[in-house]
Amino acid sequence: MASEGLILKVDCPDRPGLVAKIASYVSDHSANLVEFNQFTDRVGEKFFARLEIDTSGLDVEDFISGFGSLGRSLEARWHFRKLPYKMRTAVLVTQTDHCLREILWRTELGEMPIEVTSVIGNRADCCGIAERSKLPYHHVEMKEDKEAGFKEIQRLLKEQDVQLVVLARFMQVMPDWLCKEYEGRMINIHHSFLPAFAGANPYRQAYERGVKLIGATCHYVTPDLDAGPIIEQEVARVQHYHGVKDLVRLGRDCERSALAKGIRYHVHDRTILDGNRAIVFPD
Amino acid sequence: MASEGLILKVDCPDRPGLVAKIASYVSDHSANLVEFNQFTDRVGEKFFARLEIDTSGLDVEDFISGFGSLGRSLEARWHFRKLPYKMRTAVLVTQTDHCLREILWRTELGEMPIEVTSVIGNRADCCGIAERSKLPYHHVEMKEDKEAGFKEIQRLLKEQDVQLVVLARFMQVMPDWLCKEYEGRMINIHHSFLPAFAGANPYRQAYERGVKLIGATCHYVTPDLDAGPIIEQEVARVQHYHGVKDLVRLGRDCERSALAKGIRYHVHDRTILDGNRAIVFPD
Amino acid sequence: MASEGLILKVDCPDRPGLVAKIASYVSDHSANLVEFNQFTDRVGEKFFARLEIDTSGLDVEDFISGFGSLGRSLEARWHFRKLPYKMRTAVLVTQTDHCLREILWRTELGEMPIEVTSVIGNRADCCGIAERSKLPYHHVEMKEDKEAGFKEIQRLLKEQDVQLVVLARFMQVMPDWLCKEYEGRMINIHHSFLPAFAGANPYRQAYERGVKLIGATCHYVTPDLDAGPIIEQEVARVQHYHGVKDLVRLGRDCERSALAKGIRYHVHDRTILDGNRAIVFPD
Amino acid sequence: MASEGLILKVDCPDRPGLVAKIASYVSDHSANLVEFNQFTDRVGEKFFARLEIDTSGLDVEDFISGFGSLGRSLEARWHFRKLPYKMRTAVLVTQTDHCLREILWRTELGEMPIEVTSVIGNRADCCGIAERSKLPYHHVEMKEDKEAGFKEIQRLLKEQDVQLVVLARFMQVMPDWLCKEYEGRMINIHHSFLPAFAGANPYRQAYERGVKLIGATCHYVTPDLDAGPIIEQEVARVQHYHGVKDLVRLGRDCERSALAKGIRYHVHDRTILDGNRAIVFPD
Repeated sequence: MASEGLILKVDCPDRPGLVAKIASYVSDHSANLVEFNQFTDRVGEKFFARLEIDTSGLDVEDFISGFGSLGRSLEARWHFRKLPYKMRTAVLVTQTDHCLREILWRTELGEMPIEVTSVIGNRADCCGIAERSKLPYHHVEMKEDKEAGFKEIQRLLKEQDVQLVVLARFMQVMPDWLCKEYEGRMINIHHSFLPAFAGANPYRQAYERGVKLIGATCHYVTPDLDAGPIIEQEVARVQHYHGVKDLVRLGRDCERSALAKGIRYHVHDRTILDGNRAIVFPD
Repeated sequence: MASEGLILKVDCPDRPGLVAKIASYVSDHSANLVEFNQFTDRVGEKFFARLEIDTSGLDVEDFISGFGSLGRSLEARWHFRKLPYKMRTAVLVTQTDHCLREILWRTELGEMPIEVTSVIGNRADCCGIAERSKLPYHHVEMKEDKEAGFKEIQRLLKEQDVQLVVLARFMQVMPDWLCKEYEGRMINIHHSFLPAFAGANPYRQAYERGVKLIGATCHYVTPDLDAGPIIEQEVARVQHYHGVKDLVRLGRDCERSALAKGIRYHVHDRTILDGNRAIVFPD
Repeated sequence: MASEGLILKVDCPDRPGLVAKIASYVSDHSANLVEFNQFTDRVGEKFFARLEIDTSGLDVEDFISGFGSLGRSLEARWHFRKLPYKMRTAVLVTQTDHCLREILWRTELGEMPIEVTSVIGNRADCCGIAERSKLPYHHVEMKEDKEAGFKEIQRLLKEQDVQLVVLARFMQVMPDWLCKEYEGRMINIHHSFLPAFAGANPYRQAYERGVKLIGATCHYVTPDLDAGPIIEQEVARVQHYHGVKDLVRLGRDCERSALAKGIRYHVHDRTILDGNRAIVFPD
Repeated sequence: MASEGLILKVDCPDRPGLVAKIASYVSDHSANLVEFNQFTDRVGEKFFARLEIDTSGLDVEDFISGFGSLGRSLEARWHFRKLPYKMRTAVLVTQTDHCLREILWRTELGEMPIEVTSVIGNRADCCGIAERSKLPYHHVEMKEDKEAGFKEIQRLLKEQDVQLVVLARFMQVMPDWLCKEYEGRMINIHHSFLPAFAGANPYRQAYERGVKLIGATCHYVTPDLDAGPIIEQEVARVQHYHGVKDLVRLGRDCERSALAKGIRYHVHDRTILDGNRAIVFPD
């Protein structure tokens, strides 16, 4: 990703000449394409594109506002992102910390342009990890009045102006109203190869089914449990001698990898939602 | 696998000294272990072992019959196989031929010690492939009277003294009575990463769910559809631009690979069933 | 790939507005993009693109010839392919037949738009496989006078108007003059993960080095042995108990897969050469 | 791995009855096998085994010393490890910290029974990570007098009674005398798929060669640079649009995974050296 410039995501009904029209808009403004990805869904007759644009010597605001008339004529949805940026991100956890650690590691390394606003947990286990990275940790009690807990989470997310919510092994089912409020902006890691083993204890389910591969799935959260658009999946080979504890151990690496890639694709605007499917232009 | 000798599969309740007792039986008869695999299931308190034994200079019949008193004292199930051997195998097909071709290729190459007794199909599509390999092809009509069709299949299997039935993309649900008759001796390839997408049209299901990995599962057939013990699974990465036809194309390679490995493990006596799980000692 | 239409491959020095210019050429002729892939090499300042174009209602010859002035103004190399087509392909073999079988299988299945003009071998081993598919088999003696053998191969390739030469485990080092004559049109499968274990006996080399992964590499042939542009690579995990014979067995599946994908990408015009690197737009 | 008990590693010339003799020694002492792995190298005529033994109700010292006469009669090398234990481990680093972080994370999680005695670096970059985990950090200057630097490292390793040295992206070539002193106890992660791209700048080499898979190799250090016995290798798929920086980014995950597995196998006594090959019994 370029250190400065613009990312444009656009999708619209398919029609002839879309690439020419959109690319010409860029070149007519003397801007230059750094990266260009597009996909035409023949079945759904829809067009999806992501453009990374070098805007040196360009009036960016003018460029953005000028796109409106083209966008409207194409009946498009579109979104501009000015580079550089950091996406304000809250990480929700319960007990295990490997996904949280992975996010912090990649953020500190500069792999992902996010600013972790805080870590929110319904147990105290991950508090130390947050503190080591000098991040605020909010403990939200979920034992008795779950609805009050979710309201408190909502309040924190708003207060911190959070743009992305990451459920990093947060072991609570999100209420519908919160899923809808953060639709397309809330990412979960499920510790199975979805749609296999949705719900609780997927590693135990996998052990009992005797599978030879386990997996993890990074997906957008929707009101339907573990059924939102999939961004990334990872698998690992297992054998008969691996007990549930081994699956948990081996699965952690799948979870870390799938979640990190999923977040990366989202914050780099490499995902576009198409109903319950996610278009992903990987890098 | 050695070109001659014995394979012994044995499983029994776990107790101290099992490896010593079984290995001593071999060495006390001046036989030599070529390969030795064992697994102790701590949860189920069961012991599983596979021994490949060099029997040169040995009275094999005496060795086999002598094992009985040890086996009984261990409350074991056991099975001897004399090498070399070829497992009499029937391949059941419907329309697509890639799994059949894979089996024939590996058989001709000597990778798998099987003798294909015949190809049985409920359509004519694979007839030419069978004939090219000079194998009998039996057409069994399944359109109107399915039960009569399955009875005819049963008759052919018995007539040909078949030891292994391979469902190589045979698109018919086997009746319970036939599943039970060939329990542990009938292998299916399902074109999904089970338990995801059991049943019909798994590639379409996978496309609609928007998964990022597709797969294939080789398993023993039981009366529960697509729910028998899994021998091998394979996956392939897919992206948003892969339509159902692409998934079918990419999935074929998963199916071929998983089925070939599953058959190989079975005919080399590398699988032991433990309830609905398969112990597999790969090579 | 569309059943009819045009494929355009183009590469040129990078400059602003290339996507707009090329896509506009298409839309100005009322043609429609079915698929569009492009890549800008920032290091080498080069632009590469592949377009799949729906040409219904279009004067194709006019469209092709008209592109010349744009192409020249961009200092581009370009290539048009009219769909449908079948690429005339010769398969060269020595002893092992698994790669040949894979090619024939995928061709018969319609996965690859090639027409195998003949199988050419310096041993008789693969003759039967060719005959089963009713293909001409040419035996070319290479024992004593290798140069004469290569001249005979050249003669056959010309006589059959061959567009693609596939070395499907052909165990002879191609002379420079033949490599140059079929530059970018001759594909080899090497049975190692190049650049590791170039040259002879790669599986033995891999065994002796004690690697934990073996591989296969599909690449364009150049006068430098095993050093041409890589199209595809595949690996398989191995363990200490795998001897050289096991590596050969497990490696066959890598070879088949990498070669099949490499050929597929080439015949679908999904590869563009950039010096010693191959741009590949996979499907 | 059991929380208490014994691990026995043994290797000796192959001869009949080895499994029976060794397993009988265990059962004759009323000890119980928790896990048993063995491998017979037919080519080298050598036998290798790893036993995990439940020693409850056993005189462990008596058991260990008593094995001597059996071991000597078999001309064996053998090694006992009493569980639980923590292997005293020094981690050597230069600039990048991802491998160090991975080790610390897995250690804190309890995945690997190691005690990191200190982090030793020839630059200051990783100092903060060490301090966050409350570990001593030793800065060793290597710019001018490298030999003095290595002497200082040797002094630290001895002073801290280090049993395992991990080169976690330590970018200095170890002198022969130090390699020999820690033979079989010094593990390196090389950022390529060895033997491809040994030496400096492997990701640049990989980019220039245009490979389609990159990798990482975890191996024991020997005086021959990047040529010691391989414990584990990992690969990741790359495409033409991945520049050197992308390879570095994607390679980090291979490095972390291969190194973590390599260390795990070593500290769990799951590796046995056989010349330049490593027998590995994975878990």
